[in-house]
Amino acid sequence: MEKIQNYSKELDYTYTLGAFPTIELMESRPDLLRAVFIHSKFDAAEALQNRCDILGIRYEFDDKTIHRISNKDNVYVAGIFEKFPQGVEDENHIVLVEPSDMGNMGTILRTMVGFGYRDLILIGNACDLFHPKTVRSSMGAIVKIRYRCYESLESYLEDFPERNYYPFLLDEGATPLKDVKAPEKYSLIFGNEGSGLPEIYKEIGESVYIPQTQEVDSLNLTIAAGIGMYHFMK
Amino acid sequence: MEKIQNYSKELDYTYTLGAFPTIELMESRPDLLRAVFIHSKFDAAEALQNRCDILGIRYEFDDKTIHRISNKDNVYVAGIFEKFPQGVEDENHIVLVEPSDMGNMGTILRTMVGFGYRDLILIGNACDLFHPKTVRSSMGAIVKIRYRCYESLESYLEDFPERNYYPFLLDEGATPLKDVKAPEKYSLIFGNEGSGLPEIYKEIGESVYIPQTQEVDSLNLTIAAGIGMYHFMK
Repeated sequence: MEKIQNYSKELDYTYTLGAFPTIELMESRPDLLRAVFIHSKFDAAEALQNRCDILGIRYEFDDKTIHRISNKDNVYVAGIFEKFPQGVEDENHIVLVEPSDMGNMGTILRTMVGFGYRDLILIGNACDLFHPKTVRSSMGAIVKIRYRCYESLESYLEDFPERNYYPFLLDEGATPLKDVKAPEKYSLIFGNEGSGLPEIYKEIGESVYIPQTQEVDSLNLTIAAGIGMYHFMK
Repeated sequence: MEKIQNYSKELDYTYTLGAFPTIELMESRPDLLRAVFIHSKFDAAEALQNRCDILGIRYEFDDKTIHRISNKDNVYVAGIFEKFPQGVEDENHIVLVEPSDMGNMGTILRTMVGFGYRDLILIGNACDLFHPKTVRSSMGAIVKIRYRCYESLESYLEDFPERNYYPFLLDEGATPLKDVKAPEKYSLIFGNEGSGLPEIYKEIGESVYIPQTQEVDSLNLTIAAGIGMYHFMK
């Protein structure tokens, strides 16, 4: 097969590093897997080969490629999988505005799937959804979501005008989360880790906030998003 | 002053890396600061020196030490601060059983302070509360908490027998979180990132769980802890 390149945003594939996430991906989305690389020192190679044969996934023993793409000595399995195309449904949406941390993004994907959300909207200059760091911290959740990227809030609102928007703000003038009743169809909107949501988001839907002390600047983005998703789903 | 060593658990001090967390620590707990190191290229050195003078904190220009302890080229300020001693109050407790990820620990500290919790209990072989990674991800919250380490659950229960314990489990037989009413004085207990809570925790207090789909193994520890703290505080 073609030479596997070090990861970049422009590639049409990305990878899972490690046996656990690779096997999980094999079981949930074998159609996305182009190949599995196995290290000659991997202690369950035979079982993995058998499973690849059954699922019709090609594999290769290739210590060098695994080491090169992982940059680590303790990774023994890598899966090469295709970035899947954009496309969301008109269900409840989780909307992230310019998220900048790839680990946070993966944690949010994992929380989404844990609470039954499938549709992710990324607005503006977002970090790379398919970066191996995101893949890793999503713990397999990345292949269980749908996503779509928009350049601006306006273009998102044009596509999905008929719904309830809930921008999460740090503003105590907004509605406390516990007083919000989940309606039929909604979008939970979260801002960037450092800068939060731009002012324009105050003008759409119903702004909500999670009451917190003045002793910290704000909650971590993944925590705020997790609490928001829990509240709306419970 | 004495030569600053690379971090280890045995040292009686640790550090903040970066101007923002160091200045925050100067303002909240100047008593803990032994010294501030300033890089010759730091662009607000004069203001920082003035503030150190006012607060009675010693400072030094020392590019080499900053580079050595941070192992980075973009850190221009470091604060050396004393590990403070153990000691908790008989208030609501957040109990972590063998947490293993230092970044997660810091995020949990930040969430604790955000929701007004002050008292952290660490049980068993826990990761290092004062590791610079924990300090960093706590975003300044580390100096706003009290903590105490116990070897075992039993020794903790001996010290704090009169309270309501809530072990968080993945077991659907437990009480769903939304049905739990926060009592007067309680302990929220969370297990290790990978292995969760040992069986023995089912036998104390009231086990709770956060309903989630079967599509993920579990929520990330920091998310589960964040949702738990939010629910009990709201």
